[in-house]
Amino acid sequence: MVSEFQFINHVKKRFSLDHLGDDCAVLAKDAATDLLITADILIEDIDFRLEWATPEQIGHKALAVSLSDIAAMGGTPTGALLSIGVPQELWGDGFAERFYNGWHELASKFRVELVGGDTSMSPDKFVVDSIVLGEVPKGTAVLRSGAQPADAIFVTGTLGGPHLGLRLLESQTPYSALQSIIERQLLPTPQVALGKRLRELGIITSMIDLSDGLASDLGHICEASGVGAVLEAAAIPIDPRLFEILSFDESLEAALSGGEDFELLFTVAESDVSILVDLSVTRIGTITSEPRKLEIIRNGNTEPLTPSGFRHF
Amino acid sequence: MVSEFQFINHVKKRFSLDHLGDDCAVLAKDAATDLLITADILIEDIDFRLEWATPEQIGHKALAVSLSDIAAMGGTPTGALLSIGVPQELWGDGFAERFYNGWHELASKFRVELVGGDTSMSPDKFVVDSIVLGEVPKGTAVLRSGAQPADAIFVTGTLGGPHLGLRLLESQTPYSALQSIIERQLLPTPQVALGKRLRELGIITSMIDLSDGLASDLGHICEASGVGAVLEAAAIPIDPRLFEILSFDESLEAALSGGEDFELLFTVAESDVSILVDLSVTRIGTITSEPRKLEIIRNGNTEPLTPSGFRHF
Repeated sequence: MVSEFQFINHVKKRFSLDHLGDDCAVLAKDAATDLLITADILIEDIDFRLEWATPEQIGHKALAVSLSDIAAMGGTPTGALLSIGVPQELWGDGFAERFYNGWHELASKFRVELVGGDTSMSPDKFVVDSIVLGEVPKGTAVLRSGAQPADAIFVTGTLGGPHLGLRLLESQTPYSALQSIIERQLLPTPQVALGKRLRELGIITSMIDLSDGLASDLGHICEASGVGAVLEAAAIPIDPRLFEILSFDESLEAALSGGEDFELLFTVAESDVSILVDLSVTRIGTITSEPRKLEIIRNGNTEPLTPSGFRHF
Repeated sequence: MVSEFQFINHVKKRFSLDHLGDDCAVLAKDAATDLLITADILIEDIDFRLEWATPEQIGHKALAVSLSDIAAMGGTPTGALLSIGVPQELWGDGFAERFYNGWHELASKFRVELVGGDTSMSPDKFVVDSIVLGEVPKGTAVLRSGAQPADAIFVTGTLGGPHLGLRLLESQTPYSALQSIIERQLLPTPQVALGKRLRELGIITSMIDLSDGLASDLGHICEASGVGAVLEAAAIPIDPRLFEILSFDESLEAALSGGEDFELLFTVAESDVSILVDLSVTRIGTITSEPRKLEIIRNGNTEPLTPSGFRHF
């Protein structure tokens, strides 16, 4: 079984593609500006469920995941395209318009204009491909590939909430007190302003958004940068609401491998750490020199860190 | 039941979108250049069938339909993104790689580089969203909206072949002598060079690619330009292979409403018609002044022309 990552890596090697592998493609726009472009495909029953999410929430999330990619490059979003495949039974009942309303509400906040796209019938599942364009000053897009040994590793916000939100939705247990955590799953907030501010500091050596999960996404930075990393479990900013329901180990697991946090993971040289003092970011570890070697320090022990967390399942 | 066109028009009006409605969005790139961008979503069992098309053919067609949109603006394609949703049973067996090989073979011919995209699992159907970027000199993109009353209407190539190809595939009849016409359905050729040459002439008042069908796509030009049109049935360049199987009326119907010809439909002022003399294009009618009124002259009679052809079904 070939994983999505393996397939992408295989395609890159097979066809000598240089632009693939960051959150956005970076293309020359004009003398002062680079163009960013990203695409995210979301498919019913894989990436969302109609029984859990309203059409408006799906529209919001489709745009949010792409805005998060723009944020990870330090970019400013400018425009978007939206390709949708709509099953016949949803076509007539206002589903597509409600989807678009949710998309548009978030787009307005970020002044993102819809410039194109496509619509098609779909045999059974609702499908959306969200394409967002953005800009950065020439040569300043923050890539995954610049992390250096001894750099400090930081993350924005708190982690694990969206994963718990998904578990609550799956369990169908009424947790009305935890509606806010379900909304972190259904209505993610892309860290566009923070990503831009970090890029403007000029000290960020690598950055990625947390979509696959902290362990996986840290792995992508290490792969692209040819480095390793060690995290400190006690430093990871786990969403405190997780502890109301999960054990500490389960909460850590959710923060490491849950995914869909849409926070930013980035690295800076040790000498620049003090510049971040006013920002709500948390230091969680250090880049090491051995390529792809990921570790986590937990209860005084150093353990291997895998994409599924600190333990194999 | 809301049609795709009605939905798009509704979205445009509802949200005051200016860029929608041409084959590509036209965005400012730099002082000398405009950026074109188009997206086309193709979904298994709606836009293609795995029993009829090889993975390579689906890859070719996904790119060809987007290149045809670039051609319709007179643009030069530059880069592309590809978002695919792949069912689990196709993931491991090389389907995605064969799809990509077909995509890449056509991309190489047009020097289109893959710069990004996304991959996802899909519950059951293969889905692809093809995004292509292109360029034109600033302000020269040929829009749908410039047709003027008395302009001559032209089309490139021959029409109806892809529709007959589809019917042959559907009928499952062995027509090995007509394999070439099936390939017009499965392996369309985007008219990029001709579109660019037409744009460079500086005389094309409106242009669109023939994806929905001649009658529908002429309707889009008339809608965008606030004009009407009259076609001459006898002048329409019907693919001669159609007459081997279909009556003249059926062949005309296929040319008017079959769709997926991926030829170019365009208009020029009567005074500029002579400039086109060396190109393989055919004059098929004239723009008229009454908005949205489409007619066809057949056997000396002027009849209403509807998107489904010259006759209601």
